[in-house]
Amino acid sequence: MNPERLEELLRAVERGDTGVAAALEELRRLPYRDIGVATIDHHRALRQGVPEVVFGAGKSPSQMVEITAEMVRGGHNVLITRVDEVAAEVLGRAYPEGRHNPVARTLWLEQHPVPQRPCAPVALVCAGTSDIPVAEETLETLSAVGLAHRKIYDVGVSGLHRLLGRAEEMSDASAVVVFAGMEAALPSVVGGLVAGPIIAVPTSVGYGTNFGGLTALLGMLNSCASGITVVNVDNGFGAAMALHRMLPRTSGSDPK
Amino acid sequence: MNPERLEELLRAVERGDTGVAAALEELRRLPYRDIGVATIDHHRALRQGVPEVVFGAGKSPSQMVEITAEMVRGGHNVLITRVDEVAAEVLGRAYPEGRHNPVARTLWLEQHPVPQRPCAPVALVCAGTSDIPVAEETLETLSAVGLAHRKIYDVGVSGLHRLLGRAEEMSDASAVVVFAGMEAALPSVVGGLVAGPIIAVPTSVGYGTNFGGLTALLGMLNSCASGITVVNVDNGFGAAMALHRMLPRTSGSDPK
Amino acid sequence: MNPERLEELLRAVERGDTGVAAALEELRRLPYRDIGVATIDHHRALRQGVPEVVFGAGKSPSQMVEITAEMVRGGHNVLITRVDEVAAEVLGRAYPEGRHNPVARTLWLEQHPVPQRPCAPVALVCAGTSDIPVAEETLETLSAVGLAHRKIYDVGVSGLHRLLGRAEEMSDASAVVVFAGMEAALPSVVGGLVAGPIIAVPTSVGYGTNFGGLTALLGMLNSCASGITVVNVDNGFGAAMALHRMLPRTSGSDPK
Amino acid sequence: MNPERLEELLRAVERGDTGVAAALEELRRLPYRDIGVATIDHHRALRQGVPEVVFGAGKSPSQMVEITAEMVRGGHNVLITRVDEVAAEVLGRAYPEGRHNPVARTLWLEQHPVPQRPCAPVALVCAGTSDIPVAEETLETLSAVGLAHRKIYDVGVSGLHRLLGRAEEMSDASAVVVFAGMEAALPSVVGGLVAGPIIAVPTSVGYGTNFGGLTALLGMLNSCASGITVVNVDNGFGAAMALHRMLPRTSGSDPK
Amino acid sequence: MNPERLEELLRAVERGDTGVAAALEELRRLPYRDIGVATIDHHRALRQGVPEVVFGAGKSPSQMVEITAEMVRGGHNVLITRVDEVAAEVLGRAYPEGRHNPVARTLWLEQHPVPQRPCAPVALVCAGTSDIPVAEETLETLSAVGLAHRKIYDVGVSGLHRLLGRAEEMSDASAVVVFAGMEAALPSVVGGLVAGPIIAVPTSVGYGTNFGGLTALLGMLNSCASGITVVNVDNGFGAAMALHRMLPRTSGSDPK
Amino acid sequence: MNPERLEELLRAVERGDTGVAAALEELRRLPYRDIGVATIDHHRALRQGVPEVVFGAGKSPSQMVEITAEMVRGGHNVLITRVDEVAAEVLGRAYPEGRHNPVARTLWLEQHPVPQRPCAPVALVCAGTSDIPVAEETLETLSAVGLAHRKIYDVGVSGLHRLLGRAEEMSDASAVVVFAGMEAALPSVVGGLVAGPIIAVPTSVGYGTNFGGLTALLGMLNSCASGITVVNVDNGFGAAMALHRMLPRTSGSDPK
Amino acid sequence: MNPERLEELLRAVERGDTGVAAALEELRRLPYRDIGVATIDHHRALRQGVPEVVFGAGKSPSQMVEITAEMVRGGHNVLITRVDEVAAEVLGRAYPEGRHNPVARTLWLEQHPVPQRPCAPVALVCAGTSDIPVAEETLETLSAVGLAHRKIYDVGVSGLHRLLGRAEEMSDASAVVVFAGMEAALPSVVGGLVAGPIIAVPTSVGYGTNFGGLTALLGMLNSCASGITVVNVDNGFGAAMALHRMLPRTSGSDPK
Amino acid sequence: MNPERLEELLRAVERGDTGVAAALEELRRLPYRDIGVATIDHHRALRQGVPEVVFGAGKSPSQMVEITAEMVRGGHNVLITRVDEVAAEVLGRAYPEGRHNPVARTLWLEQHPVPQRPCAPVALVCAGTSDIPVAEETLETLSAVGLAHRKIYDVGVSGLHRLLGRAEEMSDASAVVVFAGMEAALPSVVGGLVAGPIIAVPTSVGYGTNFGGLTALLGMLNSCASGITVVNVDNGFGAAMALHRMLPRTSGSDPK
Repeated sequence: MNPERLEELLRAVERGDTGVAAALEELRRLPYRDIGVATIDHHRALRQGVPEVVFGAGKSPSQMVEITAEMVRGGHNVLITRVDEVAAEVLGRAYPEGRHNPVARTLWLEQHPVPQRPCAPVALVCAGTSDIPVAEETLETLSAVGLAHRKIYDVGVSGLHRLLGRAEEMSDASAVVVFAGMEAALPSVVGGLVAGPIIAVPTSVGYGTNFGGLTALLGMLNSCASGITVVNVDNGFGAAMALHRMLPRTSGSDPK
Repeated sequence: MNPERLEELLRAVERGDTGVAAALEELRRLPYRDIGVATIDHHRALRQGVPEVVFGAGKSPSQMVEITAEMVRGGHNVLITRVDEVAAEVLGRAYPEGRHNPVARTLWLEQHPVPQRPCAPVALVCAGTSDIPVAEETLETLSAVGLAHRKIYDVGVSGLHRLLGRAEEMSDASAVVVFAGMEAALPSVVGGLVAGPIIAVPTSVGYGTNFGGLTALLGMLNSCASGITVVNVDNGFGAAMALHRMLPRTSGSDPK
Repeated sequence: MNPERLEELLRAVERGDTGVAAALEELRRLPYRDIGVATIDHHRALRQGVPEVVFGAGKSPSQMVEITAEMVRGGHNVLITRVDEVAAEVLGRAYPEGRHNPVARTLWLEQHPVPQRPCAPVALVCAGTSDIPVAEETLETLSAVGLAHRKIYDVGVSGLHRLLGRAEEMSDASAVVVFAGMEAALPSVVGGLVAGPIIAVPTSVGYGTNFGGLTALLGMLNSCASGITVVNVDNGFGAAMALHRMLPRTSGSDPK
Repeated sequence: MNPERLEELLRAVERGDTGVAAALEELRRLPYRDIGVATIDHHRALRQGVPEVVFGAGKSPSQMVEITAEMVRGGHNVLITRVDEVAAEVLGRAYPEGRHNPVARTLWLEQHPVPQRPCAPVALVCAGTSDIPVAEETLETLSAVGLAHRKIYDVGVSGLHRLLGRAEEMSDASAVVVFAGMEAALPSVVGGLVAGPIIAVPTSVGYGTNFGGLTALLGMLNSCASGITVVNVDNGFGAAMALHRMLPRTSGSDPK
Repeated sequence: MNPERLEELLRAVERGDTGVAAALEELRRLPYRDIGVATIDHHRALRQGVPEVVFGAGKSPSQMVEITAEMVRGGHNVLITRVDEVAAEVLGRAYPEGRHNPVARTLWLEQHPVPQRPCAPVALVCAGTSDIPVAEETLETLSAVGLAHRKIYDVGVSGLHRLLGRAEEMSDASAVVVFAGMEAALPSVVGGLVAGPIIAVPTSVGYGTNFGGLTALLGMLNSCASGITVVNVDNGFGAAMALHRMLPRTSGSDPK
Repeated sequence: MNPERLEELLRAVERGDTGVAAALEELRRLPYRDIGVATIDHHRALRQGVPEVVFGAGKSPSQMVEITAEMVRGGHNVLITRVDEVAAEVLGRAYPEGRHNPVARTLWLEQHPVPQRPCAPVALVCAGTSDIPVAEETLETLSAVGLAHRKIYDVGVSGLHRLLGRAEEMSDASAVVVFAGMEAALPSVVGGLVAGPIIAVPTSVGYGTNFGGLTALLGMLNSCASGITVVNVDNGFGAAMALHRMLPRTSGSDPK
Repeated sequence: MNPERLEELLRAVERGDTGVAAALEELRRLPYRDIGVATIDHHRALRQGVPEVVFGAGKSPSQMVEITAEMVRGGHNVLITRVDEVAAEVLGRAYPEGRHNPVARTLWLEQHPVPQRPCAPVALVCAGTSDIPVAEETLETLSAVGLAHRKIYDVGVSGLHRLLGRAEEMSDASAVVVFAGMEAALPSVVGGLVAGPIIAVPTSVGYGTNFGGLTALLGMLNSCASGITVVNVDNGFGAAMALHRMLPRTSGSDPK
Repeated sequence: MNPERLEELLRAVERGDTGVAAALEELRRLPYRDIGVATIDHHRALRQGVPEVVFGAGKSPSQMVEITAEMVRGGHNVLITRVDEVAAEVLGRAYPEGRHNPVARTLWLEQHPVPQRPCAPVALVCAGTSDIPVAEETLETLSAVGLAHRKIYDVGVSGLHRLLGRAEEMSDASAVVVFAGMEAALPSVVGGLVAGPIIAVPTSVGYGTNFGGLTALLGMLNSCASGITVVNVDNGFGAAMALHRMLPRTSGSDPK
């Protein structure tokens, strides 16, 4: 129930067109519906340029097609993540115009252009080539929310000169996302070089006592560089959504 | 070696006042010194309004006094964290003008005013009263970097009406920091109510299988609300420093 | 040995039809046999409307058919859980009249109607669509013990309005079962909305540090809402059996 | 805002006593306030005979006295848990009429009689003497919500005859709470003997690889007896609150 | 109820001295009582020469004195384990004749001589001096059940010659108990030297990633020498009780 | 070098047939060779009736055939464990006379009869049908070392009457091996019923927080029944080898 | 920027050929470029005889071919590790002259001879045959950096005589690498026999609570023999690279 | 038994002075005694300049005094580690000439000068000031085995310029020991800067999910820089002993 509808109801009561009992009944379910409306409004505001997202893991290709179809009918841009090869083929047949990023395992279906955000690109910094799939998931999600990026790949700390050679690009970015598996030393070094926001994404790259990314996660949480925040292992999507929350939006739509 | 000194050296070579060999020797150790200088310059730029920080845990009161004295002599504002009762008394005698926050276990020694940052206050949202010490550490650190705050304490999800009653205050904030122990459900609920940046701080509140905050940490990393980032358990300082990186600075000093 | 048989034996001794030695021999193995009988009686009493259950995991389709056949011969209703696709096909050929729920991975073979229990339906509350298979296992088990249910699916805490919009349905239920993976915040919120019994079922939904449901389990055990009990990860069957213990039975058969 | 107040507002609009703008303003903050009211009403209904509870762990004696004083002023019965010896002495001086259970580490301050619940006593079953403090916390909490109990202590499974000798007392109870540390075999055995509700409470009793109760917790979650639910380690209070949710209330106040 | 009593009851029924109803009532509680009796008989048979045992950890000195007094009144030999210094002093005043082993943290109160077992001594093999307290707990428990021992202390695998020099003493023993902390390599080496029974006891000796004996426990469970069994960390008492089960008893009392 | 050879060498020196230098050279490599010989003798003594064992896991069928062939050539009985279906078929073609136990996943190739051991059968006690494969591995290994067995399968503690009904068979055994997954309550109950040796084998049966048998292992290590020893998860072979160490051998070959 | 280029620049300034501004601009990016150059020089020095290494895990065969081709074009010797069967076939077609070690899962492409290092062979000591693949990875890597080796396989501690029989070969080696899974007792025993450097490599050999090599890793870290260092589970490559750092190089190229 | 004694024995047999039986008896215990001798010789060779070491943790001051006294009587240099304040005072009274390092918690009692080793100093590199106690334990142990050191303290990776400024000092060292807690990023960066041997020592510095140094340990084991080896958490002594094994000894005493 939006404010207009509520005002109309009250005016109907004032006019006598609606009895108190009927109005009460109408209002009885107000609390949550109103919250619902508010939330939806709120969401709608946010969604200027924001896609619907389908988390593909654990869904069959036909389920993904079905869910996607409904969203496309609603006129929404749709981002599908964790699209494996089989699903990519099935979805590709249904949506040949979609942009499939096989490294990121994403599919992007654009129904209308995404307004670009008024800020510098986000730097995507990878320790090794194996971290790239997660970085690309961030890249595709950033793109879906109107944020530009700059790739700074394969700059692990054991070859410090490559990293230092790109320090300026990191400092110029509106934020830095650091992707690292193994011991995840990279965010600490970047943290000393860059003054802006840094999000660390542990990746499940490694073997032995890597424990599927847990070692990298713990390393990042215990970073000696202060002010670094962390998301879940391999959660490239989540890092981009945190930047979506954090970085400025198109004029007039910023929530604050 | 700052740029001025470098320019001066080159001019001395140009003038013939300094030979190439002497200049080479001077420059031989340049790489790191220059980086040092650059970093220090960079840091100095950042530090307009930023205090020196002493992490008190594991240091004796006399060590803290000694370190602090040196910083104060340098004219820096100083924030000391993890100050236990004994240290607070010793430091209090040395610096009676300092602001001791016994809940946050911090001591603040202000040598010059901190310039206030051009943004709305940060909302500090606590699930329970036991989370307050960590929230207060964030509060004191925010204050030290010129960021205002708004306390929204004791709004755990099992009493949803208290939380919903303060949703607007959260939405109006420039960012929200959510402090929670136990199962750490709060960030997920806040994530659905607020569109801006959210940092989740797990606290070591709880017993049994709480595992010193690990359960809360894991809960936050796996939050169903997207775009939430996390810092280490009880790391109230780190959350504030992440906001220091993230939120706008005084005109002209923003690094981008 | 049931009481009637025991009384008969004593009467035979009283009559002199059975000698003391023979009676002693009969009674010598009494302790456990009698317990056996008692337990079986007890079980039989409980089993009015209660099926035999076959836990399908780790059993071959032919083993399942064999075990099931024996139970069906005994005239029992049979519930088979953890039935994968291959087993479903094999069992479906043997029992075409069975009710196969492919989402729940159950097969129900009804030999005689299950008496319905005299209480309101149980609310099955899911955080996300991925929790539904576990919820459906509970649903099928509830049905097998004569308990009705009400589905409240996809009401995760990050979209609070959907959850609040169904609060009344939860409060009206005789009990609530909450299914959640990831951070498992849902039971804490439901715990604040509902006064009746709540059982939380962690699901292995998630990735990264979800650890196969462990994060959800720990979250539920540490819930800030009091009085919530927990079962093992993905144990939809166990939750239903706890309700079978807890909720009132048909008149006269309640054990207390 | 309760329904009467809402009706009154609508009638005032109908009468013209309140303008639409003023009513809108009044209603604007309705969603959460109304939920708040609803929740509070709901809580009030629940609280007939239910005490306020103070979780003493991590609170200083003076904090406990202060919080307690406020509750007592409100006329509430108060249950304080995790009261250590020092706190017990301080609180004992403030409330000499209170009932201190040093084993349970609880203090009970009764302002008005607790209405007794219309059901059989709850059986409290302990594996060993070291589990008794947790059982006594359950006992005191049950008492505070009007539920009677029956102690069945020291009946571990390695001395099966003691346990079997009390099987009838367990079967006659309205529910059974089983307290066990070490390997926590007891609930599985009780689960085979009793048809009613069973809540298992792992205790941190043991040494070596007991891991502070984790072994007992895992054992209980994996019990071979179906339908057993579990609470957090040493959470005697939580088990009682689960029974408070589960067992019938005084006539007319049952929520279903 | 022993067989004699049962026969008597049946004869009373035969004679007509006891009615069927009264006999039924008598027999109604038979199952567990009889099991109880059987178990007690069984235990009594076992207890020829076996002490009562009090696990001292978590008990106050006065509790220990009280429990001990009751056992001593019953004429039993008593072994108290985990007796700390304070308890030892209190118990020592009450039982000056007791044998206190401060290294083992045990107190032995002998009321009547323990019959010695007809087998060779048990070899107690320690990797380092820090394992000795656990070995001495085994030693005292062995002594209490009539088993002799031989100390082979400080023979860690990094000084192989000391270990090999005592191989014969190990081979001659009726069984070997190996105590080791740290990496617990010792049982694997002993396993290759000795053909008889070997019980491995992990001790909580070490630091860093020793994890309170967990590393030693895991090492022992994964020993490359076959046929080694393991008890809980620091469970010197348990190892001795396993030998009590395993080794031959005095003539006529062996259960097989 | 056996004693005879050593004596011969010394006599050759005494006679002057061997010079000191040559004897020294011969003796120089004595330490390990002699130990080698001793160990081999020792092993040979042990091996009267003891098979060679091949641990099949991680070996290809052709590797297994090759290793087995060599052992068979040496005239040894051979037991191969962890034989999967493919390996069983390949080995079956090579050794059609072999005894393949597909449940135990073992293959037994008997070259000469195994002397039977002079003791009562070993009781193999399983909690559930899923534990049977591990029990059968024990069974086959026992058979290979001349020990008889008695199957007591499917006697979990939640159906106590089945277990109690077979208590006597357990007490009569020379030892009891208890196989249990899930919460592993069974050894504790058996421990209270049986006075003889008990070895507990955790199995990886279960789901959710079973953690591949870790929960069962921890439960067994923390058993409230004293004197129970434990082997690694699913280590049916190891349990049998422990009994091989523990139980009496054919006359004259016992090492003590 | 190498020293020559820097000197040239300064001379150009001295001569007036380059202005101060241009020189400053040139030097502005010096810090990292110079470090880059330095590091590259440094690396080049190291690489006399050192191959490029491709970590094959997680790379497709075609990716491996592509990366390898570039390195081969650069004239480098190339070592590819973690080459599975499919990749081996694809790479084998591309580089038929390569040396494929299927046990080590490596491929070696030699473009120019590797200078041999002036030291004794490295002893590779395996506890069991299952550790051999990891040992062979070390072997191939040692070979690639010019270090000889000596295989001492299958000398686990439960058959001590085999190990002692080869003690001299270990003592004569320039270093010992010990490979062990299960409980990893071997390094502790070797540590007592050998005075030179020892690197322990845990392998993921074992089952049950082996936890993929974690048990072996913890055992090695807690070894009672002092001065043993450890690398990650199954990291045969890393052990060889540690020896590459540690052992003497060809004359004139040693970095110290 | 050394070779001379063996030769003498053989000659006595040759001469007839010793009978074969007596020689056999003498030789019967040879295997281990000879190994013992060999090991002792071996140890003695190593011990030129090597101290006896007492691990102080878990020992009472009087035990330490007693053990030390015996070693001093033997003329050995003695290094005592993990000496707490109380022990330091007691030992200081007994050995006022000893060198107590309160940061390292060591006591050094020099009976004769330690021969210095013919190699460059070892670089001790600390990430933070809290790592210094562990580094000082390494320092004192190095000193006790004749190895010089160079302190490079407080050079964490978040302030890269401090670290780079000392790169040359690290490269010039004969080996580098890196001490780091928290996320332990330092060894990876050092690994890229230095070509010589690197040993990483995790320290238990940190809080939250540091887990007593486990996070640092895992980070080091998973370092992206190859050829780094690791010792146990806080094991400063072990790192020095590894260098004792690795670095060249005084002429003529090198075991290879």
